[in-house]
Amino acid sequence: MQLLLINPNTSTEITAKVLSAARTFASPGTEFTAVTGAFGARYIVTRAASAIAGHAALDAYAVHGAAADAVILACFGDPGLSAMKELAHQPVVGMADASCVTAATLGRRFAIVTGGERWGPMLEEFVASIGLSERLATVRTVAPSGADIARDPDSALRLLTAACDECVTGHGADVVILGGAGLAGIATRIAADVPVPLIDCVAAAVRMAETLAALKPNKAQRGSYAPTTPVETTGLSADLAARMEQRNS
Amino acid sequence: MQLLLINPNTSTEITAKVLSAARTFASPGTEFTAVTGAFGARYIVTRAASAIAGHAALDAYAVHGAAADAVILACFGDPGLSAMKELAHQPVVGMADASCVTAATLGRRFAIVTGGERWGPMLEEFVASIGLSERLATVRTVAPSGADIARDPDSALRLLTAACDECVTGHGADVVILGGAGLAGIATRIAADVPVPLIDCVAAAVRMAETLAALKPNKAQRGSYAPTTPVETTGLSADLAARMEQRNS
Amino acid sequence: MQLLLINPNTSTEITAKVLSAARTFASPGTEFTAVTGAFGARYIVTRAASAIAGHAALDAYAVHGAAADAVILACFGDPGLSAMKELAHQPVVGMADASCVTAATLGRRFAIVTGGERWGPMLEEFVASIGLSERLATVRTVAPSGADIARDPDSALRLLTAACDECVTGHGADVVILGGAGLAGIATRIAADVPVPLIDCVAAAVRMAETLAALKPNKAQRGSYAPTTPVETTGLSADLAARMEQRNS
Amino acid sequence: MQLLLINPNTSTEITAKVLSAARTFASPGTEFTAVTGAFGARYIVTRAASAIAGHAALDAYAVHGAAADAVILACFGDPGLSAMKELAHQPVVGMADASCVTAATLGRRFAIVTGGERWGPMLEEFVASIGLSERLATVRTVAPSGADIARDPDSALRLLTAACDECVTGHGADVVILGGAGLAGIATRIAADVPVPLIDCVAAAVRMAETLAALKPNKAQRGSYAPTTPVETTGLSADLAARMEQRNS
Amino acid sequence: MQLLLINPNTSTEITAKVLSAARTFASPGTEFTAVTGAFGARYIVTRAASAIAGHAALDAYAVHGAAADAVILACFGDPGLSAMKELAHQPVVGMADASCVTAATLGRRFAIVTGGERWGPMLEEFVASIGLSERLATVRTVAPSGADIARDPDSALRLLTAACDECVTGHGADVVILGGAGLAGIATRIAADVPVPLIDCVAAAVRMAETLAALKPNKAQRGSYAPTTPVETTGLSADLAARMEQRNS
Amino acid sequence: MQLLLINPNTSTEITAKVLSAARTFASPGTEFTAVTGAFGARYIVTRAASAIAGHAALDAYAVHGAAADAVILACFGDPGLSAMKELAHQPVVGMADASCVTAATLGRRFAIVTGGERWGPMLEEFVASIGLSERLATVRTVAPSGADIARDPDSALRLLTAACDECVTGHGADVVILGGAGLAGIATRIAADVPVPLIDCVAAAVRMAETLAALKPNKAQRGSYAPTTPVETTGLSADLAARMEQRNS
Repeated sequence: MQLLLINPNTSTEITAKVLSAARTFASPGTEFTAVTGAFGARYIVTRAASAIAGHAALDAYAVHGAAADAVILACFGDPGLSAMKELAHQPVVGMADASCVTAATLGRRFAIVTGGERWGPMLEEFVASIGLSERLATVRTVAPSGADIARDPDSALRLLTAACDECVTGHGADVVILGGAGLAGIATRIAADVPVPLIDCVAAAVRMAETLAALKPNKAQRGSYAPTTPVETTGLSADLAARMEQRNS
Repeated sequence: MQLLLINPNTSTEITAKVLSAARTFASPGTEFTAVTGAFGARYIVTRAASAIAGHAALDAYAVHGAAADAVILACFGDPGLSAMKELAHQPVVGMADASCVTAATLGRRFAIVTGGERWGPMLEEFVASIGLSERLATVRTVAPSGADIARDPDSALRLLTAACDECVTGHGADVVILGGAGLAGIATRIAADVPVPLIDCVAAAVRMAETLAALKPNKAQRGSYAPTTPVETTGLSADLAARMEQRNS
Repeated sequence: MQLLLINPNTSTEITAKVLSAARTFASPGTEFTAVTGAFGARYIVTRAASAIAGHAALDAYAVHGAAADAVILACFGDPGLSAMKELAHQPVVGMADASCVTAATLGRRFAIVTGGERWGPMLEEFVASIGLSERLATVRTVAPSGADIARDPDSALRLLTAACDECVTGHGADVVILGGAGLAGIATRIAADVPVPLIDCVAAAVRMAETLAALKPNKAQRGSYAPTTPVETTGLSADLAARMEQRNS
Repeated sequence: MQLLLINPNTSTEITAKVLSAARTFASPGTEFTAVTGAFGARYIVTRAASAIAGHAALDAYAVHGAAADAVILACFGDPGLSAMKELAHQPVVGMADASCVTAATLGRRFAIVTGGERWGPMLEEFVASIGLSERLATVRTVAPSGADIARDPDSALRLLTAACDECVTGHGADVVILGGAGLAGIATRIAADVPVPLIDCVAAAVRMAETLAALKPNKAQRGSYAPTTPVETTGLSADLAARMEQRNS
Repeated sequence: MQLLLINPNTSTEITAKVLSAARTFASPGTEFTAVTGAFGARYIVTRAASAIAGHAALDAYAVHGAAADAVILACFGDPGLSAMKELAHQPVVGMADASCVTAATLGRRFAIVTGGERWGPMLEEFVASIGLSERLATVRTVAPSGADIARDPDSALRLLTAACDECVTGHGADVVILGGAGLAGIATRIAADVPVPLIDCVAAAVRMAETLAALKPNKAQRGSYAPTTPVETTGLSADLAARMEQRNS
Repeated sequence: MQLLLINPNTSTEITAKVLSAARTFASPGTEFTAVTGAFGARYIVTRAASAIAGHAALDAYAVHGAAADAVILACFGDPGLSAMKELAHQPVVGMADASCVTAATLGRRFAIVTGGERWGPMLEEFVASIGLSERLATVRTVAPSGADIARDPDSALRLLTAACDECVTGHGADVVILGGAGLAGIATRIAADVPVPLIDCVAAAVRMAETLAALKPNKAQRGSYAPTTPVETTGLSADLAARMEQRNS
């Protein structure tokens, strides 16, 4: 099984980190191609950066997406996810989408712990957009960004554990998601200190991608994610233009 | 990986049918134990039968659940699911729960096609209980029960295909779930004739169970699914009584 | 008027306590039969105990329900209520259901004070299931169980009064429900110390049962609570089996 | 028990009709005083008439409300209900409010059949305001007004029966409310021809008023329905002015 | 452009104050007629006063409404707004309605700061009635009434600034509305001290009225705000009676 | 007053058309600068095109936004709107956002008539994202695209009138929005044939932009639309990169 992992920010270190985590969580026989956004923000921590990342994700898919069995959109918050589902002929899995639905099967109310203050309202809006607001206990944006966490892991682990704990004792969460590419792999390190199940967002996305690839669903021919008529474009990369206009690039 | 498949109705034919389908959809290395409800209705097509099945599922878990890595509650509608999650130390996956969240990752709005007229409102209430009402396009209960479908498959396949089509063209579904143990394995037979992705409920449950078992989440120690204090009981099976009272049976 | 009072736990003391309270609140001419669950938990304080109680309530109804003008399901949380409404030819009133709708006619937002920590999320889910979440101010589960309250009433009354007060001042409740068979009759003892109307759940259920019996509604012949076709069963009590299979036991 | 029945329109025939029906449905020992709005519309079939009726209901209460054990606001749609609950020291029951909550205890989804086309959106908004939208199957406003129904009852009964039937077969209603003072007493005449329980709005209101009077809830001293500080007024009736200014008239 | 400003309370000082503020915010060429309620409460701070104000607003419109291009209902909380929209042939703008939708275009979540404790739940219900509850961060009812604010502005400004700040830091508001005729003009005085946009409710209403008058929408001929058939009335002012009965007064 | 009108598709004809309509609807003294997207789709009729347009809108703003008093995002569906609100120091008005809130002040339920089949679900999701789903009667996507309408206006007007009518008679709309740059100016041509108020989306956006510019709200310093810390970028236009990195370009 071939999975395409698209990191829509422009930081190749993050791509490498997510890829490494993804391999850890994958089933035997699953192989990955990992690509990085060609343009946009180094870290996606604002609404503007996220909007640009939606374009960058589509662009990366147009260049690299042909052969994959499923695609993982590896930015927690899933910029451009519904456009990706429309454009792609394979299943597309967002890290936040996969994490939320997986968490929802484990407990009544889930919380999200992530880095980057602005993601608080952005993720509340994302969860609302997938219809799960009533199952969201809270979003905690701990101070360190993914970059900060990389610099001082011990203090970050303590901070993250405390944030998870606050989700449980202060907000009634039955499950906690560690969200964000920067937190890939951390769930296993702090799980023993958190009193409810912890979800690693990369693990959830990899497993959901494997599941959808295994189910081999037909591409929708009707409805909101069906292929569209050709769209004339200007100023896009050759591959994305070809994809939108439905010709070979 | 060892999965326990609990059919909470009392029909061993259905248990065998679901087990056979589950094996088809499982990853290499996944093994199943399948058990049938010790009491209750032969087919679960009423609210009363479903309420009794909640008890039967707990009972079956108490007898057979010790060694499994995850549990599948193999009645679409998931009777007793939240009680199972409380009682079990492993992840518990309901066929309806797993199907709905999987469908939700594939499209905006999903529909359910199943047998048994009474399941219409019962499944609407189930989907509401997991917070996904706004993503449910419709529930279609085609006339034949699981038993009827077994008797005349050709006519049933035509009927089911038409029902799926009506979900797409009449109700805007982006994805359709074939729900019910009696429909296990049918999705692959009609997928080519349906214009959107089809979800087989057994496949979705098996894959979600494998995913949760692989994530090895800790049993919640806090919140609504944490272990309870011992509960004094009367008139239950020895195994269920022992489980409720938290002693060895 | 003849009311059947079903206590679906297995504690006859609780049955006696609820019956005694019910007589206090009933209109002249109302007579009661009170029955206790034949199996299950002594006190219902977990999801598993509640699921089993749904079966026990159906069983008790099958044995004792023939002659009643209406039925009261005397466990606050109403296990098996919708299955009871399907099975019974008379109106069935749940203590939580009746209390919530009565409270809703007295004030904008109501709170529930009850015993048993686990009932917090369980009652939030119940209130959601009847569509009244936006009118629920809060659920407070004070530490003492019904049993504890029986042992030290003075301290319990103070504790309950404080909990009611917190619902009003901290959560904006216009009305408070004292929920749980164990709290039957306590509302009148603390009402003078609480700044908003207090609802006794037994009183609300008895009055609603009298109302529905007086309205003499026809049994639904269509829809989700209509009689079902006969259901083949195994391993149930003779009376419940007969009822499910729609023959005389 | 003394109930005050306020008809907030200005038609004494309607007052007499509702009073007569109320006596039919009341328990032994319940006595009624019935009053008619001093100003406003003869029949309330517009938003403007309903807004004026809210004032008229308060006015009638100020003149006649002192001695009642509970008050019934006898216009289906309940103009001024929350203001009445604030002003009155006794429980106040609206015919629509009582009917909806009573219907909600009998079935999952209820429908309303009433006269007056404009009441369609007005009642949808009312049901939303009490938080029960998801349990409302539909509102059917059959052509005849209350007055028309009085003129040709046979044709009206057939029309009403057909409307109820359409609520069940076309909209999945488990219960139907016959709403409106003009339909008082009609439910018993057509109940045999409707396949689900029918609610007479006067019966529901009378029973709920008896229930609340029997519960003798304290007047709220906190929150949204507590007594207010005195309000200086101009141009109101002497009694209403006195009530608002909290002095004896 | 001619705007009719209806203050539905009976305080001419408030009318003058709102008129003066309205002129400040209006575009060149906009002219105002301002009228005061003929009956009802001096200040509207209770549910009963608000219900009466709905009638008073209709009455004022019937007397003065003929020539206006649009109407402003100048009581924050908008008593009688939907009845006004039905009765009037021009657009009718409520101060709360206009402020909430304007705030919603500026930020995700808005808060309301107003005077009068009872307005807390009343405004929550109003915001729910226009479908914007999920965008409401909080309602803060600071202690001083409009009258108090007039008496000691400095302390009131500090209090209001602190209340706005609490909406932002404690409740996540992106925008704050200063609601209530008594606060007209204050937003500009404290805007520099509040970290998010402030909305003056009079400014929002004036601008929305100008917008709707400029759009010159046709009076609805269908639906819930279309003209009604004539309504027979008793005891109303000659002008309101004529309007309801659709004849010249 | 200076308004910047950003058409985020790449069709200069559409920009000219919207600009021309905007001038028609503007107040005296309002001046416009109109810009066209530098890259992306010629017409935005797919999810992918809309995602790219979000980036293009930000880019256009970075180049041209400095001097405007307010910004109009002139694609009905408002791609990138919340990112624009974050990035811009002036108010930003989306055509769909402004139209929906304006419609909501004119009637209870509004409908949208637009071109492009795919916009049906996309606009339902947009309306949900601004919290107004319960006020949306329906979205009708009539067959002709904006381009088709330009080619055969007479037939298009008849088609549009019929679509508006269907919204009123079949879906209970109190107001209808003609959505899409391609329909600018058409509302006035068919208003006489539609039985409820019609909203021209350009008119609504222009008026709302004038209103917000007149209110001169402070840029939020807190919350979700406050300025962000500088964001490092790659591969963006010099102006957008400068804006994201908060330096002069």
